[in-house]
Amino acid sequence: MPEQRTRTADRTVFFVSDGTGITAETFGHSILSQFEGLQLRQLRLPFIDSLDKATEAVHRINRQGEIDGRRPIVFSTLVDTRINGIMQGADALFLDMIAGFVGPLEAEFGIKSTHTIGRFHAVAESERYKQRIEAIHFSMAHDDGQMHKELDQSDVILVGVSRSGKTPTSLYLAVQHGIKAANYPLIPEDFVRGKLPEVLYQYRAKLFGLTITPERLAEVRHERRPGSKYASLENCRMEVNEAEALMRREGIPWLSSTTKSIEEIAATVLTLLELE
Amino acid sequence: MPEQRTRTADRTVFFVSDGTGITAETFGHSILSQFEGLQLRQLRLPFIDSLDKATEAVHRINRQGEIDGRRPIVFSTLVDTRINGIMQGADALFLDMIAGFVGPLEAEFGIKSTHTIGRFHAVAESERYKQRIEAIHFSMAHDDGQMHKELDQSDVILVGVSRSGKTPTSLYLAVQHGIKAANYPLIPEDFVRGKLPEVLYQYRAKLFGLTITPERLAEVRHERRPGSKYASLENCRMEVNEAEALMRREGIPWLSSTTKSIEEIAATVLTLLELE
Repeated sequence: MPEQRTRTADRTVFFVSDGTGITAETFGHSILSQFEGLQLRQLRLPFIDSLDKATEAVHRINRQGEIDGRRPIVFSTLVDTRINGIMQGADALFLDMIAGFVGPLEAEFGIKSTHTIGRFHAVAESERYKQRIEAIHFSMAHDDGQMHKELDQSDVILVGVSRSGKTPTSLYLAVQHGIKAANYPLIPEDFVRGKLPEVLYQYRAKLFGLTITPERLAEVRHERRPGSKYASLENCRMEVNEAEALMRREGIPWLSSTTKSIEEIAATVLTLLELE
Repeated sequence: MPEQRTRTADRTVFFVSDGTGITAETFGHSILSQFEGLQLRQLRLPFIDSLDKATEAVHRINRQGEIDGRRPIVFSTLVDTRINGIMQGADALFLDMIAGFVGPLEAEFGIKSTHTIGRFHAVAESERYKQRIEAIHFSMAHDDGQMHKELDQSDVILVGVSRSGKTPTSLYLAVQHGIKAANYPLIPEDFVRGKLPEVLYQYRAKLFGLTITPERLAEVRHERRPGSKYASLENCRMEVNEAEALMRREGIPWLSSTTKSIEEIAATVLTLLELE
């Protein structure tokens, strides 16, 4: 974040919301990534849930436009029509991320939208929310094969060599999707025995593998333990080859974290889980 | 997910994307939450990045419409115009989440969008992505005051009584925002001494507190350790009062996880971090 404030930006983009602004920001990023070579300063204006706050936000946006010498871009997920009305008075390119969709859906469903602000509050008390919190605790407790207890409650168990991306993927699945994702390392002992860790056989259908190129693995491991045998390219090659051979023999589906992001791996895991 | 498949839904909603579909889904959820009382079956169709896959997706959507007896809703973040063209042939209410925004932005910026599919792939190699992965490892390692080493590298250190929401909030900040969020428990010993854990004083400016109502805390703790003194309402009351008094004395900003979701707490933490 600091570099956004110090380097010169062509434009300022505001993500304005009556809630956290995360939806506006996620979506806005995705749209803006279609434009290359622009220096954009991106700022979130969350919790704009009153007429006063809206007026204040308009001042803030206009002031920024004067500083920049160009009008800002505003991505808005405001749903309250009065607050929205004030915001539209800002000297900015106003992109309403709600209005264009709510209208057609009202016609399609034959009902009116609630236009309720702070819909998110309701979510905090929902079953789905509780499930996510529980999944985060579960995935933390079942990181790196730490705990065998309650492994039967996992939705998925990621396997792979150390530093192949299991931990970030597990936590992403938990935080973002409320999936109880355990992960379990494949280590040299397993390769000597030529078998999966014994405890995993009973959960065979829940296993999903992650792999990584030996080169990338060596790089990642060198950052942790520079110059160690653990990080050597030769050792990484052996571990990756053995792990892939093992997963192939056991019929475990797998993906490479070298070429896929955690979001992409997570999307694949979700698709597999839904198929079952 | 299972209940979505077994209960009868009024409609099916598809989130169609050339990437993971996460943006389409997040945004779609937020729009759909404006409509109450509908039973919606929500399905993600990720990685639609070829004409063949688009054709297959159209069949899938049409088949679902026949089963439901009503045309499905399609939220699309497809950017390739040919793929998009095929998808628009589906018998569905097609909501294009890109087109309505890209046009005005092209005019505003005076440049053409790249219309590139799979923009996300580039992200996997970016600094920002690496930073997120690193933040997840950091937050895992610094959960619950486990590790004092490298605490100086944290962006924020959450403090609060056991089960006040520190762990989920830390991991959310790491996964979603690439923030190195450590967390450190406030325990009865600290209340006896009337001081923060000694190690924290040097990081005073990074501290952010979480609190929770004693009633909710007792509930949460009872789930983990039923009938324990730790979970008793009386003990929870004492701990929460003491923790709040301590945070007040030390001038630590704080929020309640009883009334705020982790998303909302994270948004507040981000705003504070940006202010500095």
